[in-house]
Amino acid sequence: MSDQSATTTDPSTAPSAPTNPDVKVSNRGRTSAPIANANSAEYDVPEFELFGAVGPRGLPPMTEFLDVWDVDMMRKQDETNKVLHHTAMYHSEYLIVRRAQEFQIKITFNRPYDANKDKIAVEFVIGASPQYSKNTYIPVFPNEERRSPWQGRIIKTSDNMLIMGIIPTATSIVGKYHMYVAVVTPFGIRRTKRDKSREVYVLFNPWAAADAVFLDDDTEREECVMTETGIIYHGSHDDVAERHWNYGQFNYGVLDACLYILDRSEMPIANRGDPIKVARKASAMLDNRDDGGVLVGNWSGNYTYGVAPTAWTGSTEILLTYANRKIPVCYAQCWVYAGVFNSFLRCLGIPSRVVTNFVSAHDNDGNLKTDVILDENGRMDRSRTRDSIWNYHCWTESYMSRPDLPAGFGGWQVVDATPQETSDGMYRCGPASVHAIKHGYICYPFDAPFVFAEVNSDMVFYSRRRDGTMETVKVNRSHVGRMVLTKAAGTQDRRDITEQYKFPEGSAEERTVMEKAELYSCKRETSNPPIADVDLLLSNLEVSLGDDFQLSLEFVNRSNYRRTVEAYISGSVIYYTGVTSSEFLFTTPTIKIGPGQNVKESVSVEAKQYMKLLVEQSNLHFIVTGKVIETGHIVTAMKVVRLHNPVLRVKVSGPAVVNEEMMAVVEFTNPFTTSLEDVNIRMEGSGIMMPMSKHYKLITGGSSITWSEFFSPQRAGTSRLIATLDCPTLRQVHGEATLTVEA
Amino acid sequence: MSDQSATTTDPSTAPSAPTNPDVKVSNRGRTSAPIANANSAEYDVPEFELFGAVGPRGLPPMTEFLDVWDVDMMRKQDETNKVLHHTAMYHSEYLIVRRAQEFQIKITFNRPYDANKDKIAVEFVIGASPQYSKNTYIPVFPNEERRSPWQGRIIKTSDNMLIMGIIPTATSIVGKYHMYVAVVTPFGIRRTKRDKSREVYVLFNPWAAADAVFLDDDTEREECVMTETGIIYHGSHDDVAERHWNYGQFNYGVLDACLYILDRSEMPIANRGDPIKVARKASAMLDNRDDGGVLVGNWSGNYTYGVAPTAWTGSTEILLTYANRKIPVCYAQCWVYAGVFNSFLRCLGIPSRVVTNFVSAHDNDGNLKTDVILDENGRMDRSRTRDSIWNYHCWTESYMSRPDLPAGFGGWQVVDATPQETSDGMYRCGPASVHAIKHGYICYPFDAPFVFAEVNSDMVFYSRRRDGTMETVKVNRSHVGRMVLTKAAGTQDRRDITEQYKFPEGSAEERTVMEKAELYSCKRETSNPPIADVDLLLSNLEVSLGDDFQLSLEFVNRSNYRRTVEAYISGSVIYYTGVTSSEFLFTTPTIKIGPGQNVKESVSVEAKQYMKLLVEQSNLHFIVTGKVIETGHIVTAMKVVRLHNPVLRVKVSGPAVVNEEMMAVVEFTNPFTTSLEDVNIRMEGSGIMMPMSKHYKLITGGSSITWSEFFSPQRAGTSRLIATLDCPTLRQVHGEATLTVEA
Repeated sequence: MSDQSATTTDPSTAPSAPTNPDVKVSNRGRTSAPIANANSAEYDVPEFELFGAVGPRGLPPMTEFLDVWDVDMMRKQDETNKVLHHTAMYHSEYLIVRRAQEFQIKITFNRPYDANKDKIAVEFVIGASPQYSKNTYIPVFPNEERRSPWQGRIIKTSDNMLIMGIIPTATSIVGKYHMYVAVVTPFGIRRTKRDKSREVYVLFNPWAAADAVFLDDDTEREECVMTETGIIYHGSHDDVAERHWNYGQFNYGVLDACLYILDRSEMPIANRGDPIKVARKASAMLDNRDDGGVLVGNWSGNYTYGVAPTAWTGSTEILLTYANRKIPVCYAQCWVYAGVFNSFLRCLGIPSRVVTNFVSAHDNDGNLKTDVILDENGRMDRSRTRDSIWNYHCWTESYMSRPDLPAGFGGWQVVDATPQETSDGMYRCGPASVHAIKHGYICYPFDAPFVFAEVNSDMVFYSRRRDGTMETVKVNRSHVGRMVLTKAAGTQDRRDITEQYKFPEGSAEERTVMEKAELYSCKRETSNPPIADVDLLLSNLEVSLGDDFQLSLEFVNRSNYRRTVEAYISGSVIYYTGVTSSEFLFTTPTIKIGPGQNVKESVSVEAKQYMKLLVEQSNLHFIVTGKVIETGHIVTAMKVVRLHNPVLRVKVSGPAVVNEEMMAVVEFTNPFTTSLEDVNIRMEGSGIMMPMSKHYKLITGGSSITWSEFFSPQRAGTSRLIATLDCPTLRQVHGEATLTVEA
Repeated sequence: MSDQSATTTDPSTAPSAPTNPDVKVSNRGRTSAPIANANSAEYDVPEFELFGAVGPRGLPPMTEFLDVWDVDMMRKQDETNKVLHHTAMYHSEYLIVRRAQEFQIKITFNRPYDANKDKIAVEFVIGASPQYSKNTYIPVFPNEERRSPWQGRIIKTSDNMLIMGIIPTATSIVGKYHMYVAVVTPFGIRRTKRDKSREVYVLFNPWAAADAVFLDDDTEREECVMTETGIIYHGSHDDVAERHWNYGQFNYGVLDACLYILDRSEMPIANRGDPIKVARKASAMLDNRDDGGVLVGNWSGNYTYGVAPTAWTGSTEILLTYANRKIPVCYAQCWVYAGVFNSFLRCLGIPSRVVTNFVSAHDNDGNLKTDVILDENGRMDRSRTRDSIWNYHCWTESYMSRPDLPAGFGGWQVVDATPQETSDGMYRCGPASVHAIKHGYICYPFDAPFVFAEVNSDMVFYSRRRDGTMETVKVNRSHVGRMVLTKAAGTQDRRDITEQYKFPEGSAEERTVMEKAELYSCKRETSNPPIADVDLLLSNLEVSLGDDFQLSLEFVNRSNYRRTVEAYISGSVIYYTGVTSSEFLFTTPTIKIGPGQNVKESVSVEAKQYMKLLVEQSNLHFIVTGKVIETGHIVTAMKVVRLHNPVLRVKVSGPAVVNEEMMAVVEFTNPFTTSLEDVNIRMEGSGIMMPMSKHYKLITGGSSITWSEFFSPQRAGTSRLIATLDCPTLRQVHGEATLTVEA
């Protein structure tokens, strides 16, 4: 007997997720317990753990056994723990220590501790599902016969007090642990109650040789772990500009915000001792795409619902906003991603620095070409030229060993949080070994082909025929990856680290590296179109925003014949991503050059041509292309002119002593004849002032404003006050002042 | 003069994304055009493209120039294009060809084509932003002097008709192209109108030596590209079960569904010619997590709002449902992921096969240990044993070269769409070279350490002391990765491919490989606890669901002394993921064994103990642990008993001729005394029957049902009708029938 009803399955009505595509399915059947992936999830170890069934008369009185009266984590800024572990700078009331280095705690009992008789353990627990074999539950013993991964020893006993030394392993999970003291009695284990003051943060340790992030250089370590302010370079390789940035990794709440980022990413706790995995995860989590991460990227020029990328003064406000409001922060461009990522890494103890690659190829993944399409006359075809080269791109380098790769690829690693439009889908990049990139070993994870293309792409100029086919007419192999800069350790100077990424242009080593990269399927342009015997040079320029100026071109005829160049000179306002916003100048001179002669040509550019069209970074881009009539060869030249913005003047006055009030003054004069509307000024300084902002509805043309603010430095030493001014018509105005605070 | 208002920035009120964390930001400023990432996005090439400004009198009459009257794509199933390109099986009216192989089209003009005078081009366009340099716009010319990447030639002319041969490059983008015929006139280019019938699909070509997916073996190619039904193995290594699966890659709509998956992933079109990138992207897109992909994983036993993973008969219904409804399909477990992934790969022309790894370690990423925690007496501590080992795990292998790696790592690659809980965050895996895994070169992308751990982990037994510390008491190095099976090409037999993944257990090569993997920071258990001199063996069993049976244990004393074992015998119902659902048997015999003697012990298991507790795959797991009293050593043994389900009988009757009606009969008898409720039966057969289903509200104990269905085979050849029965209390019941259809 059966009760039945027959249907044909129409695929369009077959069951699928009822309403919400993100159907929540439990872990039941899949894992025996959910994977622990939140440091903030709490697991309370039982206060009493029985060894067997309780007899009919219940437990005997426990008064005769050792009892814990007090636990002192020795967590003050000036106590040895924080001083020796280089964590006194963290604005935190909790104990913060580093791996592979001993720290001390003080336990007071109801009677003196007897090493021969009493059995105690100090237990460290992290996450919701502590397990000994996953290193999320770690008992530490004061004596040698009972071993555990973390070493313990008695440093001193005196009356009822015991000072114990504890060394976390060099591979310990990085994060916040709870600490308990357990006393073993014949009936069971008795523990201290959970107490927030006994929480301890364990960080990476660049000072310990056994740690994967060990960096054996005092100056570098001081810069890349301990320094809170830095300089991020931008502009163009021949006119470099500086942006001061407050990393603020020691500010109140920043460490917790960094751990929140890892929790939000649902990264399994058991993996959080591996700097490779932590850096890779964070490179994904700093952007909001895919995973609801920290920052929303926006290159559009419209920042109405958030803060313009150019307006930020540092990372603190971004990290704290994200941790408090738990939604992505608006808006970021590459230096914001790189700066916040740098704060994250330094905060957790991974040495890191922000670098800038001038003329950076983008959105190429194993394709070493950036295409420029010219028409048959040699004029650039903007509608068909879709690739862009960024004037500069910032990323972060982190320092670590790479045990997952063959020997030789440890050291500095590229990690990049700026979202790319590449094939691999996830918006993340690295860690990719800088050494592997230099030597063309791009077969090793993670994302090395992408970074290799950023510094090594060729610019390929095509001439497009009427029937749609293309001919390669020029290959420029030295335009991309022109210079890689980072702030020098210990000074305010620039350090050129181009040679860490590539061998000199034209050297034998460079050719070998390019061949090796091709072995790993990087596709290069192989054609070698004839090189024109006419050179075209554009002179360097330093121009202030609002100035009229002359663009000078020089045509050099290297041949013994007369040459005629039909040139196309185009001037555009561009984004720093190389994308054209609008063309403001176009002229087509014909230049005749005698044999072996030079001819100079000058083009006048007036401020009124470009001022109304500017986008936030005030970059003008001149591209000159042309055809030599006699030979049909193509000549090209390009130049980015960075218009220098007016500056913000920042001054401090007063005693410059810890906890004494002093004054900061920010002054700005509107140099234009038109008004600036909706102006925001931001200011902050690590250890001296948390981020502040002030809003001006209107600053009329030619007028000045002065913002005075009282503040009290919290920390002695040299620090820097960083300010930015931002409004829709004028962005990227900044200023800073250095001050030395006395204790 | 200035209008101002000052505020301190409170981080908790600083701007962040207004309401929706997924703020949509345009590409403006970031890229000059959106990156083309949808094959379905259309770009219509202009019908007339002028070469210059139109004069005052307008265009001259165009009648004197060559005009296209008709284009024949020669796309019928029996025409040479589809036969030679092995695409006649696709149920599609469009032309489908493979890369690196010539296909033909026939163009009819208003007059005979004159090769010396007329200039034509056949243009192929894919995606919304066609570019010559990105290979998304490809003009093809009939003569040699005008070159383009795709070669063209005139095969034949006759009267006004021209047959042209076209060879797409071996690296062409895979997807659907639009085709135009363009005629160059002195005034401009004149094109055919867009016409859907001129669309052409270009696929990977395993028959072409130049293609990255070239597989030089007829039998393998026939199986791994052209075969629509297959067998997926499950059960346990000593009692293997078979599940027939209808991959259905040639069914109507499946090819479009596969392209929709790539579009939905927003994979840039320019990357879709690379099988590595396509396979990696698909491994992410087959699961709904992160990206709204095809399938929702569910291991919980509760499938109320979808189809139970065990109920599917093939991939077609899943792929078509996803493409039609555009939301993830419920529900999948590993073989469903592997089966649908296999359909996707075969459909696009990448050779692929489903493999099953028996005893598969999971959720390990570079950690080669799976932990079992015993208490001090040797009894398993289920609350502390959190790791699980899957009875089996299915993944997919795809065949391709690996130009991104050093030579020697091409060939079969592991790709796995089943979501894992690992560190790398993205739910995807591979391609990982099988050869690299065998030889321990796990430093090469993608995800090789994870796959290496699946086949090479050790089971580590710990004894947990009262104070919380652990001691390693036994390491079983051969339990995991016991056997890897796939269906043999060209037959219905099993093929053991374990030796492609690992060297023989205990061989010198195996030790070398494990050492090499450790170099790349795979963490192994290094301790070598003493091996007990008592062995414990569990005999093999074949048990039908509902049977009582005896579990036989044998204790072998290899010593010359008397031995006493205190044993803990635990029987549980488990999921195939190794996760325990409930324990139904527990007994603690003490066994005394004389010197050099064997003792047999037998444990009775009654059906009533386990029947009420069963979960879908009806697996029982016996774990025996114990302590040898005299030596303190630990003995362990484990066995998975797969309960054999009743079968579904499938029969066909009738003529078995294409387009003639015949009948399928599915019969089932409820072998139990209790009723089965809410029973679904599904049936399908590639080329003969699209997925059908029938629902029975109730099948009472002992009663039988018969479902008869008429169908008409659409295709000649051998095919298979696959049926499953599924209800909440009885899952994984299947049957199949083979039939040979005549033309």
